[in-house]
Amino acid sequence: MVEIVVAEHAGFCFGVKRAINLAEEALKEGGHGSKVFSLGPLIHNPQEVKRLEGKGLCLLESEDGLKANSTVIVRSHGIPPQKEAELLSRGVRLVDATCPFVKAVHEAVVKLSKEGYFVVLVGEKNHPEVIGTLGYLQACGGRGVVVETKEDLKEVLRRDRVGLVAQTTQNEQFFKEVVGEIALWAKELKVINTICNATSERQEDVYELAPQVDVMIVVGGKNSGNTRRLYEIAKSLNPRSYHIETPEELKKDWFEGVSRVGITAGASTPDWIIREVVSNIEHLVV
Amino acid sequence: MVEIVVAEHAGFCFGVKRAINLAEEALKEGGHGSKVFSLGPLIHNPQEVKRLEGKGLCLLESEDGLKANSTVIVRSHGIPPQKEAELLSRGVRLVDATCPFVKAVHEAVVKLSKEGYFVVLVGEKNHPEVIGTLGYLQACGGRGVVVETKEDLKEVLRRDRVGLVAQTTQNEQFFKEVVGEIALWAKELKVINTICNATSERQEDVYELAPQVDVMIVVGGKNSGNTRRLYEIAKSLNPRSYHIETPEELKKDWFEGVSRVGITAGASTPDWIIREVVSNIEHLVV
Repeated sequence: MVEIVVAEHAGFCFGVKRAINLAEEALKEGGHGSKVFSLGPLIHNPQEVKRLEGKGLCLLESEDGLKANSTVIVRSHGIPPQKEAELLSRGVRLVDATCPFVKAVHEAVVKLSKEGYFVVLVGEKNHPEVIGTLGYLQACGGRGVVVETKEDLKEVLRRDRVGLVAQTTQNEQFFKEVVGEIALWAKELKVINTICNATSERQEDVYELAPQVDVMIVVGGKNSGNTRRLYEIAKSLNPRSYHIETPEELKKDWFEGVSRVGITAGASTPDWIIREVVSNIEHLVV
Repeated sequence: MVEIVVAEHAGFCFGVKRAINLAEEALKEGGHGSKVFSLGPLIHNPQEVKRLEGKGLCLLESEDGLKANSTVIVRSHGIPPQKEAELLSRGVRLVDATCPFVKAVHEAVVKLSKEGYFVVLVGEKNHPEVIGTLGYLQACGGRGVVVETKEDLKEVLRRDRVGLVAQTTQNEQFFKEVVGEIALWAKELKVINTICNATSERQEDVYELAPQVDVMIVVGGKNSGNTRRLYEIAKSLNPRSYHIETPEELKKDWFEGVSRVGITAGASTPDWIIREVVSNIEHLVV
């Protein structure tokens, strides 16, 4: 008999749920007679995006052909204020689904910058959330740098006063290490911890669960940063950890001789995919 | 042939040199006809204190019998402002040898406290420097806690806004860990790094030197916190590390089959003791 344990905190977070609700409302209203677009994939989960496309959501490839009065959903990751202004100048109707916790990062970098700090944003350079936040830093005339790896810390050397924030879904361990390093060099370091609760809870659950199971399955978009970080943590604690996007990726031989399977899922993974994963594992281990 | 390598940064720091100079000047002036006292051992090195006692410096056991016009030297570690006021009210002449880097810690806790932060002082609870700094925190009506071990961090949980400083001679590695932990819990953490350069340099030299030698000798008072921390670092990198206070403590069998010996010394260890240690090792290994 195989026991399947789903982490207490797994799957959709507050910000993602909110973005999907806002999108579904906009789709119900029918976009005021025009199409409803999302600026980039609404969430980092291709399967859930596909479900919403079935309801009429269109992925905006380019803003060039965008008609006035179109509805554009700003996804939970947020966008730079420059981009927001550009869209508004085209007369589109914006549905702002930026996660409130991401808005808090925007406010934090502006605050730190106004207080004269050189801003360090611990995050992924190419992640839309980070690009949006950098836009806010730029708009207020602030200076700063994104720290994605320890290598990037060389940009922070010789900075006397450093203000630090994190992408909401950052790895807590990496964040701690970066904060500790900078605290040693800088004369003054002000940290506003902007890692969201959903991230902490999901990561803490993996730290607890992964060593207690024979196999650990991390479910979520391959393009989802927070899912990838859950997988990295799981892998560091349990070599039999796998990152899958869909239930079809599960392999029977992963579960040979296994009595306990742990499951977690990124903040952009819908419950229906988690349920399918559980069900498929139950069939595989029979 | 045995090679003896003395760390580039070892022995007396700026603040200790300054305190000894101020004490020697006061002794030359002859205490204005009265005795010259030091409030506690002038530095944490019994041999150097003995040398100064030979020149007339008296250790103040209790303030009760203190005559007006006596000269009292405040050592580099500093004292609480309450104690300073009490001494001045007795009419004594104070020679303030408080290290300027320690004064910077006093100013930092007052600043953080006025900015509304709960103050964390990373340091040794019973160290005179820490007791002095806590006096400044108390005098400005601030709240805070000394963190000496990870256990003490529980006092910091549930604090939203934390301001952090360190005893000037703290272990950098422990400081980093404490900063990282608190950054994860607190909403906002402001760190003013008050570990002095002399401490960083001595610790960094040990990190470099200890693994490169066969035996590592750490010279300094057994009551000297910064020397003990140099020893802890050395020991963690090289099991053949020894903490000695005087050259007489060296043992011939420590150097059997050894080709390279490293030496470092705490910030309160005089050069003449370091020279004697080098000379004694040279005799032992012949």
